[in-house]
Amino acid sequence: MTTQYECIPCFVRQASEALAILVENGVERERLMRQLLGEISVNDWRGSPPVMAQHLHRIIRQATKNKDPYSSVKNEMNRIAEGMMSRMREMIRKSENPRELAVRLAIAGNLLDSGAKTQISKEELPQHMDKLLAQPLRGNAMTLFQKAEHTSKILYLADNAGEIYFDRLLIEMLPPGKVTFAVRGGPVVNDATMEDAKRAGIAEIARVISNGSDAPGTILDDTSSEFRLCFGQADMIIAKGQGNYETLSGRSRKICFMLTVKCPVIARHIGEPVGSMVIKM
Amino acid sequence: MTTQYECIPCFVRQASEALAILVENGVERERLMRQLLGEISVNDWRGSPPVMAQHLHRIIRQATKNKDPYSSVKNEMNRIAEGMMSRMREMIRKSENPRELAVRLAIAGNLLDSGAKTQISKEELPQHMDKLLAQPLRGNAMTLFQKAEHTSKILYLADNAGEIYFDRLLIEMLPPGKVTFAVRGGPVVNDATMEDAKRAGIAEIARVISNGSDAPGTILDDTSSEFRLCFGQADMIIAKGQGNYETLSGRSRKICFMLTVKCPVIARHIGEPVGSMVIKM
Repeated sequence: MTTQYECIPCFVRQASEALAILVENGVERERLMRQLLGEISVNDWRGSPPVMAQHLHRIIRQATKNKDPYSSVKNEMNRIAEGMMSRMREMIRKSENPRELAVRLAIAGNLLDSGAKTQISKEELPQHMDKLLAQPLRGNAMTLFQKAEHTSKILYLADNAGEIYFDRLLIEMLPPGKVTFAVRGGPVVNDATMEDAKRAGIAEIARVISNGSDAPGTILDDTSSEFRLCFGQADMIIAKGQGNYETLSGRSRKICFMLTVKCPVIARHIGEPVGSMVIKM
Repeated sequence: MTTQYECIPCFVRQASEALAILVENGVERERLMRQLLGEISVNDWRGSPPVMAQHLHRIIRQATKNKDPYSSVKNEMNRIAEGMMSRMREMIRKSENPRELAVRLAIAGNLLDSGAKTQISKEELPQHMDKLLAQPLRGNAMTLFQKAEHTSKILYLADNAGEIYFDRLLIEMLPPGKVTFAVRGGPVVNDATMEDAKRAGIAEIARVISNGSDAPGTILDDTSSEFRLCFGQADMIIAKGQGNYETLSGRSRKICFMLTVKCPVIARHIGEPVGSMVIKM
């Protein structure tokens, strides 16, 4: 999916919000904001949105001399998700359709995103989750499990910290021994890295690999050869979140996208309204 | 009021929305968007927000070779407001406090704004008006009339096309012969110009002057000497809308600001929440 005209003001908004959080000094914040505006004005707009986001966040990390500026945000999201685990396990245990609920929860966990416009505070999250879980799932969750039964290698592309706890619940329901869980190769926004996957205990139930890239999505040309090998060999790929959808949509028929739709550009592209929970194969 | 850090992404959003409306050709729109991003990145951020907006809209008018790109928007807003006049006159006639209602209506008319984030479609307007009119007025409308009685020269600074019909209703209640109505000196966004004031019949009930400037606010240094003379000689100035507030707040104790608060920066500055109707002396 290529960057759309409407993505441009959204890049600027995300950049300004990132600097508002990360740079306390007003003069330095202004200097950096001017730099990012300049970058957006001259950069290529033909790539997928995560290409630009990767570029901007590299500049931010370099300028702030902070290799992982969202570290505390990620820790907080992990902590919140961790705290919801027993309640969610109980929900699944009591559910008439535990598999579908696990898919719904994994998609609802995608709300833990600090990049998208739909920013949700940690206080609001449980309420939003309930609201989201009450609405219809767009797409068929059961197809995911049917396909998973008939494959030998499943590659699961993670999105955000916190969210990966929800992913864990779903992975626990997939056939054991088949899943490889891929995280970003380095910190970018609040996206999950190896550290988060370990903390969430994913390494105990799946093989965890890094994709070797610091893009907030999966830009194949930017990933490691180990990751690309996994990608090529997988019979089935589960791709979480907008960033993975933006970078991989239309790339392979074996991908199953799972996301909450957070912006009108994605909504138009995927054919489902903003706010909806989508599973799309 | 100086430009705040949060105004920067808002400038970008406004610029992108303006180009989306005004420039059909995608290549040309991208070229212009890149130019405007570049301008915002290097321009002075110390002025009031309308200084930047004036600069960006001059570039847009020049690039599109269109001296009045919002002409049709303004005509539509005038038409809508014109169509509401008899209903509003009836409301005022039946009101227990017609003077306060006229102030409320003049402030509610400030919703007819295509620059602010709170974009309201023409279909939604009557409903928004009712909602706005039902909420408390922040400030005392009666003080306006008391002051108007004891002054000889009132300068009324207009904001948007359409809105000026609502202003007309208020001016009809002010002491006759005292009001000078000032409009923008040239087209900028949907701000009212001489043409709109004539169409709304303001010239029949007040002296109408141009402020000589194409800024979407009142940047005194940019206005004509005729306007500045009026400004200096007035005993009382009624300033409508955010643009006039942004440029004149803190400049004179004789100004009475009347506006709907449409953004968090103004809300913080004026001390009233977003969405409120404010009259502030």
